[in-house]
Amino acid sequence: MRYAMLLSYDGSRYQGWQRQGNTSNTITEKLEIVLSRLLEEPVGVSGAGRTDAGVHALGQVAAFDFARPLDPKALLDALRSYLPEDIAVLDLKKAPERFHPRLSASGKIYRYEIREAPWTDVFRRRYQWALMRPLDLKAMEECARILMGEHDFRAFSSDRRPAHSTVRELRSVRIDRRAGTVTITCEGSGFLYNMVRILTGTLVQAGLHEMGPDQVREALLTLDRQKAGATAPAKGLTLVKVIYPDPFDLFDDPLDAQGFV
Amino acid sequence: MRYAMLLSYDGSRYQGWQRQGNTSNTITEKLEIVLSRLLEEPVGVSGAGRTDAGVHALGQVAAFDFARPLDPKALLDALRSYLPEDIAVLDLKKAPERFHPRLSASGKIYRYEIREAPWTDVFRRRYQWALMRPLDLKAMEECARILMGEHDFRAFSSDRRPAHSTVRELRSVRIDRRAGTVTITCEGSGFLYNMVRILTGTLVQAGLHEMGPDQVREALLTLDRQKAGATAPAKGLTLVKVIYPDPFDLFDDPLDAQGFV
Repeated sequence: MRYAMLLSYDGSRYQGWQRQGNTSNTITEKLEIVLSRLLEEPVGVSGAGRTDAGVHALGQVAAFDFARPLDPKALLDALRSYLPEDIAVLDLKKAPERFHPRLSASGKIYRYEIREAPWTDVFRRRYQWALMRPLDLKAMEECARILMGEHDFRAFSSDRRPAHSTVRELRSVRIDRRAGTVTITCEGSGFLYNMVRILTGTLVQAGLHEMGPDQVREALLTLDRQKAGATAPAKGLTLVKVIYPDPFDLFDDPLDAQGFV
Repeated sequence: MRYAMLLSYDGSRYQGWQRQGNTSNTITEKLEIVLSRLLEEPVGVSGAGRTDAGVHALGQVAAFDFARPLDPKALLDALRSYLPEDIAVLDLKKAPERFHPRLSASGKIYRYEIREAPWTDVFRRRYQWALMRPLDLKAMEECARILMGEHDFRAFSSDRRPAHSTVRELRSVRIDRRAGTVTITCEGSGFLYNMVRILTGTLVQAGLHEMGPDQVREALLTLDRQKAGATAPAKGLTLVKVIYPDPFDLFDDPLDAQGFV
């Protein structure tokens, strides 16, 4: 049987979603340790988005297989008591056998928060890039429009030797300003390694008038990483939602989830 | 000359706004140390609300006197660089000589956040009471209506021997629910020691059907602390705004402050 979980985490303390080389202290590892203990056999967890060290999630989706019968509600309660308080399980459900958290997804939404005002938002300081310089939102939006649509985003990835296609569809980029914080919300068919952080770095350089639309077009055309902007810090990034087509659309929107329905 | 500051802080690490007995590591102390160093003479700071250990502020107001000329903008920048990242100075201005952050205030707004959903909001976990039980908002609102208006709130204070009047006007209590969190926003002429936390504890007991309107009325009438609800935990409470009449209304609303205008 396959089970799926909807997860939030504060990534500050972790070396990312998943082991890369020798790193440990990953979210996957924490989940696997607790699940394996509760289910009394080794359990492997796979996730929809391999968030980097320091990146957060509001609505990560993960799955695991378990052969013996289990009560999802009882397991959900147990997970909530045994996981650390910076990892939260919003929901846990039986999933279709063919469900794969990454491969079944039809899209993802990421949010990046940039502190523009010259003082810290003390309550969001762990989840924002402390830029503290004013941004020209019109200039950012102009460059965002160039990036939207289906493109080869190789210039916007840290992966030097991509094994697969680097074509992705960037469906929307929304830029909002509220109380001294600028939020960039990106929805796409999928994102390359570090893509949202490089898109953000590029848009921020546009907002600081350090880069213009022509350079953004050139980065897209030449596929040259050097033409795109710098990689924005991990701590400002949050995986908001993983989008699934109908038979795999198992969970409430993590932004609306109330817990008591 | 008198100067006023608008401040935010995450109170998690501190023993409250101000020294009580032998405690140190207060917000006041941090401010006084940095100000005294920057201004090269001892500076004393007084605040509008004496927030308890663990209580937060979005818009605390504080003042200090300094005889020699100073550039408020330069001092603001210096304070921002030298204060720890959990204390933020939103603004600093010359204030009228008669301005007193506490005595000049005509009202205060406090907000209390209660986690109702059975999983942690990992991003707000330091600023919420992790109740994790469903609340009956209608029952809470019924009791809130009884508490609104001018009353002797002695039953809703931890101060056993109040030296001054315990009559306060509770101007509004708003209860909102969003994404698994219930927020209680109280505006009043002023609040007694622990009053918002005891009001919250009372409303939560009403929301859990452990207390009814009759007991709330009885607490108000008898002035008996034992009849009111328990004191809600400090970490869920935030001083949102201090309200001043016209000549002392120096700052933008901390909820809207953008920093670049």
